[in-house]
Amino acid sequence: MRIQHLDQTTRQNLLEDLLKRSPNQYGEYEQGVLEILDAVRKEKDKALFDYTEKFDHAKIDAETLRVTEEEIEEAYRLVDPDLVRIIRKALENIRAYHEKQRQYSWFDSRPDGTILGQKVTPLKRVGVYVPGGKAVYPSSVLMNIVPAKVAGVEEIVMVTPPGPNGKVAPNTLVAAREAGADVIYKVGGAQAVGALAYGTESIPKVDKIVGPGNIYVALAKKAVYGHVSIDAIAGPSEILVIADDSANPRYVAADLLSQAEHDELASAILVTTSETLAKEVSDQVETFVQELSRGEIIQKSLDRYGYILVAETMEEAIDTANEIASEHLEIQTRNPYEVMTKIRNAGAIFIGEYSSEPLGDYFAGPNHVLPTNGTAKFFSPLSVDDFIKKSSIISYSKDALYKVHEDIEAFAAAEQLTAHANSVKVRFEEE
Amino acid sequence: MRIQHLDQTTRQNLLEDLLKRSPNQYGEYEQGVLEILDAVRKEKDKALFDYTEKFDHAKIDAETLRVTEEEIEEAYRLVDPDLVRIIRKALENIRAYHEKQRQYSWFDSRPDGTILGQKVTPLKRVGVYVPGGKAVYPSSVLMNIVPAKVAGVEEIVMVTPPGPNGKVAPNTLVAAREAGADVIYKVGGAQAVGALAYGTESIPKVDKIVGPGNIYVALAKKAVYGHVSIDAIAGPSEILVIADDSANPRYVAADLLSQAEHDELASAILVTTSETLAKEVSDQVETFVQELSRGEIIQKSLDRYGYILVAETMEEAIDTANEIASEHLEIQTRNPYEVMTKIRNAGAIFIGEYSSEPLGDYFAGPNHVLPTNGTAKFFSPLSVDDFIKKSSIISYSKDALYKVHEDIEAFAAAEQLTAHANSVKVRFEEE
Repeated sequence: MRIQHLDQTTRQNLLEDLLKRSPNQYGEYEQGVLEILDAVRKEKDKALFDYTEKFDHAKIDAETLRVTEEEIEEAYRLVDPDLVRIIRKALENIRAYHEKQRQYSWFDSRPDGTILGQKVTPLKRVGVYVPGGKAVYPSSVLMNIVPAKVAGVEEIVMVTPPGPNGKVAPNTLVAAREAGADVIYKVGGAQAVGALAYGTESIPKVDKIVGPGNIYVALAKKAVYGHVSIDAIAGPSEILVIADDSANPRYVAADLLSQAEHDELASAILVTTSETLAKEVSDQVETFVQELSRGEIIQKSLDRYGYILVAETMEEAIDTANEIASEHLEIQTRNPYEVMTKIRNAGAIFIGEYSSEPLGDYFAGPNHVLPTNGTAKFFSPLSVDDFIKKSSIISYSKDALYKVHEDIEAFAAAEQLTAHANSVKVRFEEE
Repeated sequence: MRIQHLDQTTRQNLLEDLLKRSPNQYGEYEQGVLEILDAVRKEKDKALFDYTEKFDHAKIDAETLRVTEEEIEEAYRLVDPDLVRIIRKALENIRAYHEKQRQYSWFDSRPDGTILGQKVTPLKRVGVYVPGGKAVYPSSVLMNIVPAKVAGVEEIVMVTPPGPNGKVAPNTLVAAREAGADVIYKVGGAQAVGALAYGTESIPKVDKIVGPGNIYVALAKKAVYGHVSIDAIAGPSEILVIADDSANPRYVAADLLSQAEHDELASAILVTTSETLAKEVSDQVETFVQELSRGEIIQKSLDRYGYILVAETMEEAIDTANEIASEHLEIQTRNPYEVMTKIRNAGAIFIGEYSSEPLGDYFAGPNHVLPTNGTAKFFSPLSVDDFIKKSSIISYSKDALYKVHEDIEAFAAAEQLTAHANSVKVRFEEE
């Protein structure tokens, strides 16, 4: 891995380079995505069948679009029982963590008859996109469905592209059933997003679409945003490790590669105050790349978006981490909690040398759907918050309104909204 | 106002009609907006000055772009001291309500050395868009700035278009100062959104852009979504009143008109179980329209998007309200709290006959920036939530990781992510 000393130019170039991976920069695919969405809106199911044949090389019709009970039972026969056990253990942790995110309706009443409050309501129907293709990620199924279930969503509609044999991977189906998907449709890509956003004869319109996907899925989600809600536009995965000379180079190297293996656009960055650690990690990375099955992807990802940055001070390392706002941030330093207090921007923060990133991907409980590509500056991990919404409650008694009615009328008059003023005035004019 | 009996066809037609007002349907303006954004990204300040001259007929340069301390002092001299007093009272209520929305970091520790948590961090810099032009809404300034201040945002950058004299309305400036804007720039439209999203020589890039605006502003916000965060795409205002025969027709009529006066696309709907009330409200509306200064706008809005719907049962009325998911919902029935329990979708719920909608616009405390156009099915009122973000915290001890490391390795192996498995494995291989 390349080693660079941190200075303002390096930092600036790095930031610009990383942002090039953003789904906002892929305008070239946008027209195609809009055409697919338009076709789904107009031709509904038919468009889904056509695109599934074209892109997934699978023949699907109104009969086979929906995953059957038999297919799920078959999946359970095919999946290693030990994986089912592990999925159940992971689910327990994920549920326990997300339970703590619940939000509650509240109100505040005063003796003059005023009640103000905030009512929390779960979304009614949610669509969960699960990628298919070569990579099958049952963990992603769990992470997207559990927060919706905990929030109290009534119906969870899952979509995932079928393989050329017209089937969904057994691991995916088992994870979906365990997590609580209500119905699963075999459709993927921008066409699946269109189906969830507009509804077809077979697939009901949802209130929100969540789940990671490729660039077509990301652009389709962006296009339907506003018509329905979406989680966030997921970009390629990232890890940033802050380490000092106390860190174990072997652990740091292994953790960097755990994200680099995702895809060639993934980014793995070490920011360290130790020149010695920098060299050791770089050497260790070379060794691992030789041994790992996804070495080729890792090498490409490291060549393009992998960096070992040597900082003068821990402050400088932390500033860089905050600027990059990485999806995953590991802190492997002598006082990791002290460093944590200074972290403003990160999707998930892994503290100490035994909190390796994959622990969070699979098992610990926090969600692994995290803001990428610098968006941790303003977005949050997927959570129960994503599946609820709030309504304000305003309830005034006659007395309470009387006390303020003149002020409201004057404020409305200042905005030249006379019908606003009138609606308060009429309530007291007859007195 | 037209009176219709509620049936499935009426309901369906009505829903489709209302959705036509959505900013998602204005594709024709999109190209122009994208061109403006592109120009701002490339030419920065220069583009702002050019567009301000073109659209706002005001000459602005690097010297005059930023509102000065002198301009604010001048504004205080021009604004009615009574309005300043009312603004301060309103601010007190708005702050008190939003304080209750604060969210806190939490953690959960277990004796085996596991710590899981969620860290809450305010956004660093936020842009607030305030419309200018003929209508000046100081209340909007308060509602957009207060939740950001309560959340702890470090810097609030306000933008608002200048009048042809190159000045911002005094009411707006006073409201901005009172609410706590840190800096105010005289620029509006899509160009202001572009400046906040990308930064220019004068205006710093922000993390999130909030605030209502016209169709150009809405489309620009949608276009930059993902690069920065945005609040929501605001559509025209709406009110839906659920009333039974106990309601006062004069109050109901006045409240309907308070939203109809906003603009010609605004929608005002009464759903009632009482045919008598329907007729009385319709008559009362006619009377008010004659008297009110914005009668012409009101009449156009009512002709296009105003309805009095007569429902067979209260259940049917409630179902209709939930389907329409109105920005403002008033409940004027004998048992308004019982009706409230059945409301799933509404931006703000006004309960009882003395909770007229303008009370919420100006004074009560809850935010008046609310989801419009059916988006209350999945969006929430603007709140402190909009100005914070969360990071997950994961911290495992060696013992805690040891207990689960085999399960994590097996899960990663099932997903064929060998570098993920490796990053856990290396931590225990030397033992």
